[in-house]
Amino acid sequence: MWMDTKTEMEEASRSRASFSQRVLNGLLLCTGDMDHLDKSMQDKLFVLQLAVWGLRGVTRVILANNPLSGALILAALYWASPWQGLLGTLGVLASTLTAVVIGQDSAEVSGGHHGFNGMLVSLLMGVFSSAGDWYWWLLLPVCLGSATCVFLYSALSSVLDRWDLPVAVFPFNITILLYLLCTGPDNPYFPHHTATPPGALDPNGTELIVVEVMRGSLLGVGQIFACEALGPTLLILGAVLLYSPLLAAHALLGSAVGTLAGLSTAVHHEFLYSGLSGLNGALGCMAVGGLFFTFNWRTHLLAIASAFLSAYADIALSNLLGTVGLPACSWAATLTTTLMLLLTGCLAAYRIPIGQVMTPERNLYSRSRWEAGNTTERQSTDV
Amino acid sequence: MWMDTKTEMEEASRSRASFSQRVLNGLLLCTGDMDHLDKSMQDKLFVLQLAVWGLRGVTRVILANNPLSGALILAALYWASPWQGLLGTLGVLASTLTAVVIGQDSAEVSGGHHGFNGMLVSLLMGVFSSAGDWYWWLLLPVCLGSATCVFLYSALSSVLDRWDLPVAVFPFNITILLYLLCTGPDNPYFPHHTATPPGALDPNGTELIVVEVMRGSLLGVGQIFACEALGPTLLILGAVLLYSPLLAAHALLGSAVGTLAGLSTAVHHEFLYSGLSGLNGALGCMAVGGLFFTFNWRTHLLAIASAFLSAYADIALSNLLGTVGLPACSWAATLTTTLMLLLTGCLAAYRIPIGQVMTPERNLYSRSRWEAGNTTERQSTDV
Amino acid sequence: MWMDTKTEMEEASRSRASFSQRVLNGLLLCTGDMDHLDKSMQDKLFVLQLAVWGLRGVTRVILANNPLSGALILAALYWASPWQGLLGTLGVLASTLTAVVIGQDSAEVSGGHHGFNGMLVSLLMGVFSSAGDWYWWLLLPVCLGSATCVFLYSALSSVLDRWDLPVAVFPFNITILLYLLCTGPDNPYFPHHTATPPGALDPNGTELIVVEVMRGSLLGVGQIFACEALGPTLLILGAVLLYSPLLAAHALLGSAVGTLAGLSTAVHHEFLYSGLSGLNGALGCMAVGGLFFTFNWRTHLLAIASAFLSAYADIALSNLLGTVGLPACSWAATLTTTLMLLLTGCLAAYRIPIGQVMTPERNLYSRSRWEAGNTTERQSTDV
Repeated sequence: MWMDTKTEMEEASRSRASFSQRVLNGLLLCTGDMDHLDKSMQDKLFVLQLAVWGLRGVTRVILANNPLSGALILAALYWASPWQGLLGTLGVLASTLTAVVIGQDSAEVSGGHHGFNGMLVSLLMGVFSSAGDWYWWLLLPVCLGSATCVFLYSALSSVLDRWDLPVAVFPFNITILLYLLCTGPDNPYFPHHTATPPGALDPNGTELIVVEVMRGSLLGVGQIFACEALGPTLLILGAVLLYSPLLAAHALLGSAVGTLAGLSTAVHHEFLYSGLSGLNGALGCMAVGGLFFTFNWRTHLLAIASAFLSAYADIALSNLLGTVGLPACSWAATLTTTLMLLLTGCLAAYRIPIGQVMTPERNLYSRSRWEAGNTTERQSTDV
Repeated sequence: MWMDTKTEMEEASRSRASFSQRVLNGLLLCTGDMDHLDKSMQDKLFVLQLAVWGLRGVTRVILANNPLSGALILAALYWASPWQGLLGTLGVLASTLTAVVIGQDSAEVSGGHHGFNGMLVSLLMGVFSSAGDWYWWLLLPVCLGSATCVFLYSALSSVLDRWDLPVAVFPFNITILLYLLCTGPDNPYFPHHTATPPGALDPNGTELIVVEVMRGSLLGVGQIFACEALGPTLLILGAVLLYSPLLAAHALLGSAVGTLAGLSTAVHHEFLYSGLSGLNGALGCMAVGGLFFTFNWRTHLLAIASAFLSAYADIALSNLLGTVGLPACSWAATLTTTLMLLLTGCLAAYRIPIGQVMTPERNLYSRSRWEAGNTTERQSTDV
Repeated sequence: MWMDTKTEMEEASRSRASFSQRVLNGLLLCTGDMDHLDKSMQDKLFVLQLAVWGLRGVTRVILANNPLSGALILAALYWASPWQGLLGTLGVLASTLTAVVIGQDSAEVSGGHHGFNGMLVSLLMGVFSSAGDWYWWLLLPVCLGSATCVFLYSALSSVLDRWDLPVAVFPFNITILLYLLCTGPDNPYFPHHTATPPGALDPNGTELIVVEVMRGSLLGVGQIFACEALGPTLLILGAVLLYSPLLAAHALLGSAVGTLAGLSTAVHHEFLYSGLSGLNGALGCMAVGGLFFTFNWRTHLLAIASAFLSAYADIALSNLLGTVGLPACSWAATLTTTLMLLLTGCLAAYRIPIGQVMTPERNLYSRSRWEAGNTTERQSTDV
């Protein structure tokens, strides 16, 4: 009798729980990782599958993983510049197809892991090219560079797996530097602009415009896709918000921290206004705050520390590489994130193994469930 | 009765097989790894043993391993320049002896693994020295540099063993850069030429001479030994042919690919004519095509990709290091080969473990036998 | 009866042994690692504990580990320049406290492992600052830089542990380069001097002064703490002597070797006079001679080879980094020591696992005891 009542109550609570669960699931359909899409895509045409893989790859650039966000970001890029949008699309497709051809792990390919480096290489090749838009010869290095990223990704993963580290954007950073070094500024086929080190003195010491600095702090998020226009940047930020609000908040926070770091070392104004000072801070902050570490106040502080370190390291590397006319890209954020993931001691307990990384919200949820499970277990063991 | 006939038939087929086997063995006596020589050398004088180890070391430079080829290559070097020949001989002996003295693994020493880095360091020291031939003081850094390579080889092997990677010519590349950095161009004791980056513009834009470019593509193989003369280069190529025809073909193919890569990025003409553009392509192509991967059409395509990547990376690194007057040596090919060996996915299945690397032909043969064995086994299991 | 006598004799010999042991212990109280201090400090105030950890950290810079030596060295720094002393103290405290806050391993913290990198960063920031002494704004980067070292130390230890390598001063070398790159020579907030490459030609070719060179060879030991005065250098040398005479002898030997290497490559005179040429030689010699390898004539020769290699590599790296105005700090010695610790072959047998490293004298003692034990065991097994 008592047993029955208990069962009924449990069922009732379960139905309530399942209702709220269903609402949560409904919301999660278009947000988060959108795992459910993969299952429904399994028996579709290869072209459709490739599109989803590519869109996931587009979001991987900004540490997200959601095809819908990918479509939004791609729209933002086409809005900012159709030529850049085309290059990005080509880059993500070329590298994903290369991965299919040389037989990379299918789970990695379908997760978009082989697309984002190629996309970044293509976008940066376009930005640095001084031959102007619609210079069709550029598609040659774009395709070759994107394909090279797959080889680098595959090889680096063998090394970094030993420490359970992500390959991240190391392949992009290596490939773009090699490309820019191969073709100097005066190359007859593929000329490009040289990067100015941020420590270079302004020729005419003008006053700092506060509004411009705040705008630059926003643009830092857009600069992750080498996009310097405000509208598209906001669209990109919206796409990240769709994936995970926590990640979007950290992107803004990190970009602001980066701008602060830039101000404290008196970099030249253009570096602040264009958002380049915020780029690495944003990436460093997003990676630690929620993505690779469970979110709590300790890892939040670590994320801010990571943003500062990324930003200062970026200024240092930009000054160093700027002496030979090269940009520092996202070396600083990638190295800092790798550093943070290698940390030992108390903070390592909050780290999420690479294989289990999901949206920050789901990371948090699964952690709290796991902890609750642990507590229950401990209690039942105590009894 | 029936049994007997079968046995006889088997014996007959075996004797036929053993005859063809014997012919093959006869041919293999002077070609390939010449393992049999090691056994007959075991109780000989130390000086004779050292000579064989040294000659193996000489061929290791060009990824071969055959004392007879080593003698041919050494002859080619003495033909090109007696001073360079002397430096090379001294380098290979100094580093092999150092390895014996500090007690390195005897199998490695007798395989010539401790000779080739020292030899390359000595040759490059000679080439870059601006004090002219027969400058006897140069023997001091030659001996010290060659000895340093042994320490680097031993230490790097501890690290690279974790991923079953060869140490290759990393020690040479590190040592020669340190030497050139230590002694600047104006050093009173050991002055040297500075390297010109290949991206530097030609002062007078002359027409490209096609015959010279084709000659440069051949010289790329000779440049592996820092040799820029056509005759000795052909002799070196003959030495590689003696070791393995497949390897020689890949050397030529890789050098041609490298020249193509140089043309596509418009490097200055001297870089193409001297064969420097082909050097890294040849090394990258040889390492992948047959040596560290079983030869088939897939790895053949990978070898061409590796040659292109090596060649482009070499142009990039030469431009970077050229800003401080340093040569890129064979950094590009060494890094690219390491990258290719780290690849995961389908292509990794063709990789040969470092401990089992033989001539490309024997790699192919043992692979096909192993596969045949597997098939037979599977059939017998099926029955 | 016979049994009793034997026991008595054993007791007598033991009492004699214990007497000499006690004398030895008495001498070891203030010398060596001073382990006993740790036990008596366990229930003391946190501030006192922190002081001991900090003093241990101070000596870790020069590869020693003795709070008393630390006090002497700190006194030497205050003697040379009170401002530098203050910066050093602040650096060691800031980094040790950071390590406590972010929850690093307590054994590492109490051993001073998290203090020495922060201290070096602070000292070098002070030396390179061109804003003069008592420029209070410098305390900001000093604290941040010291804190960064803890993150780097923790992360690098995850990587280097795989090969049982010490993190050594890698964090310091990375942090100081990043700081100097961040703030250029003309930075309005944190200006600094640029380093001159040692290969730069002297503007007026003066004669070499032998006494100055010998003085510079002594100053090489002081330069480990960025101290260029003779008196404090002698005090620092005394502090090392208190920890371990063997280590002090190797410091002097290494510094002399470094000066010799400098002479052989004709570096400019200021590099020799200031002791900068001896710095890396001293560190490379100390690390190999007795600390990480059991002392004997073979490792003594290896220590000299290590000193030469460190010194030459330092000149090379100084020339390279000097092209962008950066100092090479102790990169050369750190890399060379890492290399020596990775050596395979006979010499690896003398290597002491990182967890068991003590003073050179105790290393030697425990080795000989272990060997004696082995011999006895073998004998008893033979019987």
